Amino acid sequence: MELLEGILAGQTRAVARAISLIEDGEPEAEALADELFPHTGGATVIGVTGSPGSGKSSLVDRLIFRERARGRRVAVLAVDPSSPFSGGAMLGDRLRMQEHATDPGVFIRSMASRGTLGGVAAACGDVLKVLDAAGFQTIYLETIGVGQSEIKVVELADAVLLLLMPGAGDEIQVLKAGVMEIGDLFVINKCDLPGADKLRSEVEYVLSLKDQPQGGAADPVVLVSALSDEGIDTLEEALRAWLQEAQRSGALAERRKLRIRREIEGALSRKVHALLDAHIELPRQIEGWVERLYRRETAPYALVREQVGRLVKEWKR
Amino acid sequence: MELLEGILAGQTRAVARAISLIEDGEPEAEALADELFPHTGGATVIGVTGSPGSGKSSLVDRLIFRERARGRRVAVLAVDPSSPFSGGAMLGDRLRMQEHATDPGVFIRSMASRGTLGGVAAACGDVLKVLDAAGFQTIYLETIGVGQSEIKVVELADAVLLLLMPGAGDEIQVLKAGVMEIGDLFVINKCDLPGADKLRSEVEYVLSLKDQPQGGAADPVVLVSALSDEGIDTLEEALRAWLQEAQRSGALAERRKLRIRREIEGALSRKVHALLDAHIELPRQIEGWVERLYRRETAPYALVREQVGRLVKEWKR
Repeated sequence: MELLEGILAGQTRAVARAISLIEDGEPEAEALADELFPHTGGATVIGVTGSPGSGKSSLVDRLIFRERARGRRVAVLAVDPSSPFSGGAMLGDRLRMQEHATDPGVFIRSMASRGTLGGVAAACGDVLKVLDAAGFQTIYLETIGVGQSEIKVVELADAVLLLLMPGAGDEIQVLKAGVMEIGDLFVINKCDLPGADKLRSEVEYVLSLKDQPQGGAADPVVLVSALSDEGIDTLEEALRAWLQEAQRSGALAERRKLRIRREIEGALSRKVHALLDAHIELPRQIEGWVERLYRRETAPYALVREQVGRLVKEWKR
Repeated sequence: MELLEGILAGQTRAVARAISLIEDGEPEAEALADELFPHTGGATVIGVTGSPGSGKSSLVDRLIFRERARGRRVAVLAVDPSSPFSGGAMLGDRLRMQEHATDPGVFIRSMASRGTLGGVAAACGDVLKVLDAAGFQTIYLETIGVGQSEIKVVELADAVLLLLMPGAGDEIQVLKAGVMEIGDLFVINKCDLPGADKLRSEVEYVLSLKDQPQGGAADPVVLVSALSDEGIDTLEEALRAWLQEAQRSGALAERRKLRIRREIEGALSRKVHALLDAHIELPRQIEGWVERLYRRETAPYALVREQVGRLVKEWKR
């Protein structure tokens, strides 16, 4: 299969075509993902998330230049899983792509959720396989916002940078459950703005309340200015230390196994659904059920329990 | 069941308790929803969506005061399906609740997605049943942002107001596929800001490209200022006309049937999943599968195909 060979040789055109196959939910995408799978595991995937405007793209750009200076091949996958309002993000990525257009060691791609079958996280997982097998050593997995769909996406990463910025109500948001759990390293960007130190204290306070230890970082909170490059070296060093410790302790392997587990569960769920749609002939039955419910002749959960009961009997026969 | 009676009598305390049962995914919530179901169908559900900051809450407040002047009982369900960053919105709702605190004809409730089993849209659907059966004649279903999860939520409504505002990049966003499809009426808020007329032209241009007719509104684009109350009477009139025409044409019945259909599909899917988890003993098997995949001894989709094939054989036996 020449597409497979092209990807393994790191050809940009083959990589781009494979990603399009995955995005469009083409049937051959699954077989391709399986063929690539043995060649994966070499890349480090860094999730980058945070509120819109917190400076994720600028930060990733700073990190890319450093990796390139060391000769490492880098990919960026910018994902907008929750919003059809993605004009701005896509525009920004197009600007970024121009900046790195002449550098064959950098691959940048945006993914929107529209038209993606089987969930964004599943599609992202397969795209990561393509980039990994194509020899990109670091892959930045960047989300547009920080919602539940975004959390599912960054769960595919080996380490997650959560970006915060002073002002913008982040002080309150940080205290909310669910957000602190996403991040491995907490990056306070725009550290020249007033309130940066206050935000740092608040993040550290919330972290101190957590039971489990924070992976491998002595201090997981880093103040940076992506604009002026301040603190980026410190962040890079902290990230490297975190990853080394996660590898040593086995936390990285655990996380990668969890990722595999979620992938199995997701794929299993999608297959079983397709199968059941055929099995209970939902398309043929549902119109009648809808009419009965519309006329309030039965109630929804009662009807569903009845149907599932019938199914189980059928299977057992 | 006294909870049921309390809800049917429109008691705020009973309504609030029922909603909590649904939010927490308590087992008795399904039976309650089924018992309420025959008493539903009387409420009109108005979805209100749009980017954060477009003024959804202020607009809904303006509409509430008008409905109250006519003696109608009104409920607001503010839903944040995608973001754990919901501090701001919840704060806003608390302020609003204070404003209407002394009015027993207004019920306002926020729902976050955390802890909600079986999907936000499903939980919202059941909460709407509670509010409907409790005799609220108009229910505003308000989302925080405008993402894919939000779209699933406003699909529960009889009519959807999509709020836009001049500036904020909405001009570009409006052209994006997916967004225009949500709205039945397009409300340009903050119409005193520069660019309001330009935005109106753009929205109307995009609407003119659509194949299907726009329900029942002669002009589905309305300029308002929720702040100064400008245009709200026109909007209310346009909404009423839209609903009347949708009722006359049968479009409203079609939409309500579609809502029922999605509800059946969702509930069926959740039940079947629970059943399968027990059937294939996923918890017992998955660790071994994860290890095999982690060692790259097999590939994910191949493994899932194999398991599903095994399942089908078992069922057929």
